[in-house]
Amino acid sequence: MNQPATPERCARWGVYEVELHGPADGNPFTDVDLTAVFSDGEREMRAGGFYDGDGTYRIRFMPDAEGLWTFTTASNAPVLDGVTGEFACTAAAPGAHGPVRADGFHFAHGDGTRYLPVGTTAYAWTHQAEGLRDRTRRTLAAGPFNKVRMCLLPKWYQYNHVEPEYYPFPGSAEEGWDTTRFDPAFFRRFEQEVAALQDMGIEADVILLHPYDRWGFADLGAEADDRLVRYAVRRLAAYANVWWSMANEYDMMGAKSEDDWERLAAVVSEEDPHGHLNSIHNCGPFYDYARPWITHASVQRQDAYRTAEFTDEWRERWGKPVVVDECAYEGDIDQGWGNISGEEMTRRCWEGAVRGGYVAHGETYVNEAEELWWSKGGELVGTSPARMGFLREVVAASPTGVLDPLPSNWDARTGGVAGAYEVTYFGFSRPRFRELPLPEGKRCRVDVIDTWNMTVERVADDAEGTIRVTLPGREYMAVRVVAQQ
Amino acid sequence: MNQPATPERCARWGVYEVELHGPADGNPFTDVDLTAVFSDGEREMRAGGFYDGDGTYRIRFMPDAEGLWTFTTASNAPVLDGVTGEFACTAAAPGAHGPVRADGFHFAHGDGTRYLPVGTTAYAWTHQAEGLRDRTRRTLAAGPFNKVRMCLLPKWYQYNHVEPEYYPFPGSAEEGWDTTRFDPAFFRRFEQEVAALQDMGIEADVILLHPYDRWGFADLGAEADDRLVRYAVRRLAAYANVWWSMANEYDMMGAKSEDDWERLAAVVSEEDPHGHLNSIHNCGPFYDYARPWITHASVQRQDAYRTAEFTDEWRERWGKPVVVDECAYEGDIDQGWGNISGEEMTRRCWEGAVRGGYVAHGETYVNEAEELWWSKGGELVGTSPARMGFLREVVAASPTGVLDPLPSNWDARTGGVAGAYEVTYFGFSRPRFRELPLPEGKRCRVDVIDTWNMTVERVADDAEGTIRVTLPGREYMAVRVVAQQ
Repeated sequence: MNQPATPERCARWGVYEVELHGPADGNPFTDVDLTAVFSDGEREMRAGGFYDGDGTYRIRFMPDAEGLWTFTTASNAPVLDGVTGEFACTAAAPGAHGPVRADGFHFAHGDGTRYLPVGTTAYAWTHQAEGLRDRTRRTLAAGPFNKVRMCLLPKWYQYNHVEPEYYPFPGSAEEGWDTTRFDPAFFRRFEQEVAALQDMGIEADVILLHPYDRWGFADLGAEADDRLVRYAVRRLAAYANVWWSMANEYDMMGAKSEDDWERLAAVVSEEDPHGHLNSIHNCGPFYDYARPWITHASVQRQDAYRTAEFTDEWRERWGKPVVVDECAYEGDIDQGWGNISGEEMTRRCWEGAVRGGYVAHGETYVNEAEELWWSKGGELVGTSPARMGFLREVVAASPTGVLDPLPSNWDARTGGVAGAYEVTYFGFSRPRFRELPLPEGKRCRVDVIDTWNMTVERVADDAEGTIRVTLPGREYMAVRVVAQQ
Repeated sequence: MNQPATPERCARWGVYEVELHGPADGNPFTDVDLTAVFSDGEREMRAGGFYDGDGTYRIRFMPDAEGLWTFTTASNAPVLDGVTGEFACTAAAPGAHGPVRADGFHFAHGDGTRYLPVGTTAYAWTHQAEGLRDRTRRTLAAGPFNKVRMCLLPKWYQYNHVEPEYYPFPGSAEEGWDTTRFDPAFFRRFEQEVAALQDMGIEADVILLHPYDRWGFADLGAEADDRLVRYAVRRLAAYANVWWSMANEYDMMGAKSEDDWERLAAVVSEEDPHGHLNSIHNCGPFYDYARPWITHASVQRQDAYRTAEFTDEWRERWGKPVVVDECAYEGDIDQGWGNISGEEMTRRCWEGAVRGGYVAHGETYVNEAEELWWSKGGELVGTSPARMGFLREVVAASPTGVLDPLPSNWDARTGGVAGAYEVTYFGFSRPRFRELPLPEGKRCRVDVIDTWNMTVERVADDAEGTIRVTLPGREYMAVRVVAQQ
């Protein structure tokens, strides 16, 4: 029997890893089954192991409660079967709050800390050279974003014509891939970046499959898809900051039917003992976000003119949090999905926010190096990220920590907490003043918020009844009413 | 018998007026019936007369063909009955092209000259004091507008709390109106302004009824409504530049049912021998613009975010020209319908134009005097009017003189004449370049149009195949492709 030298302790929501040594001959990826059951004495949780090359097998697990945990392996390879061990789960590391969960129409970490998605998109950043990845990490560390939407597999698309250093399978596009085996180096690279994000407090919204492909990865067939998804989930599920996205633009992947997506989602559910968030992103028609495995809607623009404006309708339709992962990107490329202004990007974020949802960022400015943030990462040059950080502060200051849609006038939506914290957003309307009825019987503080210039001006401390608020006659203003205790 | 001293000649599409003298006692408005049949030897056309006070009766007629015209009156007052006369209809005055008619999805004057509506709104301008009316006329004379939407009746509403000099009926709001009689001075004032517009080549879109009322004029009852509409049409129909609008925001006039509107429209049809354009304007739900008496749709915004973007759908729905008379107004008042920027106003005009319709202007900037252009007239201070004049030039340069919707990419609509004159409008999209397929087998001139800065830059004279057009990465750009002969 294999007595592993496993760590004696693991912080709550950290990655606990059992390393084992076993068969290296044949095809260990398919020949060897390996799982482990972890227990804290009350619950048993099963985690699948994976072959990491060179005779090394690993089982990763994210303990979600402090105390003593034990584990026992099971395998068809005798040397990997019945291995046992134990470890102490210690307090969470500073800043670690556990995986994000859906909480009604919003999100919270495992420890209950409110999580307000301020998302961006950099689909292929992990597949770029180290210099560029380093710049991406620095940009993320300096910016307001706490979620990055990113593809597991490399990407081939407009502005994306770089071969990655690693591929998921041994082989080549020209001579074919051995989809019964994986290249551990490919996955290690990806994991390293997921871990780097976790260190920065950023969620990794991992897109398992996507259509932007020249290698055949978008059409591997059901068995290879299942193997790929199982292997990826077993490697990644112990990272607390992982979200699953079954696909980007699932409806552009003609080779897969809804049955395929449902089967693949079941693989994720089966292989992820930690129940990370899961969704699937559309290009045209929505997937049915009411499906039980889907924790939140991950929406792409439905209309060239309106997207965020549907947020509250979508909440009601699916009864889940709404994340508008693509409402178009700030930039100036030739495509209509990637050339809106920072002002319009910010406007969409606010329109979504006062309707109780979360609109995400992307940036697609043409540059010499063809390093567009939305895919390769690098530097941000746009104007919307700072405003998204400012918006987050306004949302976070609500007594519930979130905004929910409130009864509104037709021309300016109000969101917040009824009678306590009400934010009315004027968008492209430019009133010079507005009469606002204050919550009945309450004395209120009233702020004029310039969402573009990121200023908050107190205009009343102790108002009641109806207040006439003077505004500057510019676009992108909001008024916040806060009831005093 | 009354032998009138009538003019011996009248220019084509001018106002020919028969003045008669008859009974002044009793109630001439209701007691006396007076009509005349005019004939050019081929056609007979019936025009109703009206009492103009002080024993004077008038019959107005707009001859639409050169040559000799004769007329004979009929009346229940013997002195007004059987009066005959004749006159020569001479060539139209310079610049007079006859009433505007619907022409498929567009408009043309009686002589076939294309008419492209560049409309504005000044609901109550004719009810203001002379000094202000004079300023309004000067503004109109200097500006790009060739249609003004204006109310026959005085208006009482936000920013409209001025009593008019005249009322349509004798009486008062306090003591009641005698709706069986009219005050000719009220109508003369209005006619004088209609005529002033005609002299400037501007169409008067006359709103017969509206809900903005403190005097009871919005709820006179069916008989008084019929009398009022009949009297107004008899006075105004001979002005070539008149359009009828049965109502503004008809659905805000709760006292009237659809049957009332249909009955009142039939009064207009019966009393207008010249068949002027007629429509009815909504606030919320549309009137059924497919009704035979409706010549064109006169639309108000359906959505806070999209309006002009529906233009092509509406054309198809009703098979008639679409005029978006209210898509919101450039300004900064507290109401969402009146505080968009000049940029957004201009964008809506272009979005409507490339879809083959006509979006109109209004201006609602707060000012000290409470003289908002949209209602009282005065001066324009906004930025969109000049851009609307520029847009008109781009439309007029099409070989058909109009734009019709053409097959388009989802993110930028194209309008024009297929293969000959194609204008693609990018709106808030800001591409740095765009690849455009040119009409097959044609050599083309290509212009980059900055719809905001009102510039046209020729970027190719003789291109074919697909052209990559470089753009400045700003909002509000268009590209025009013109096939060379």
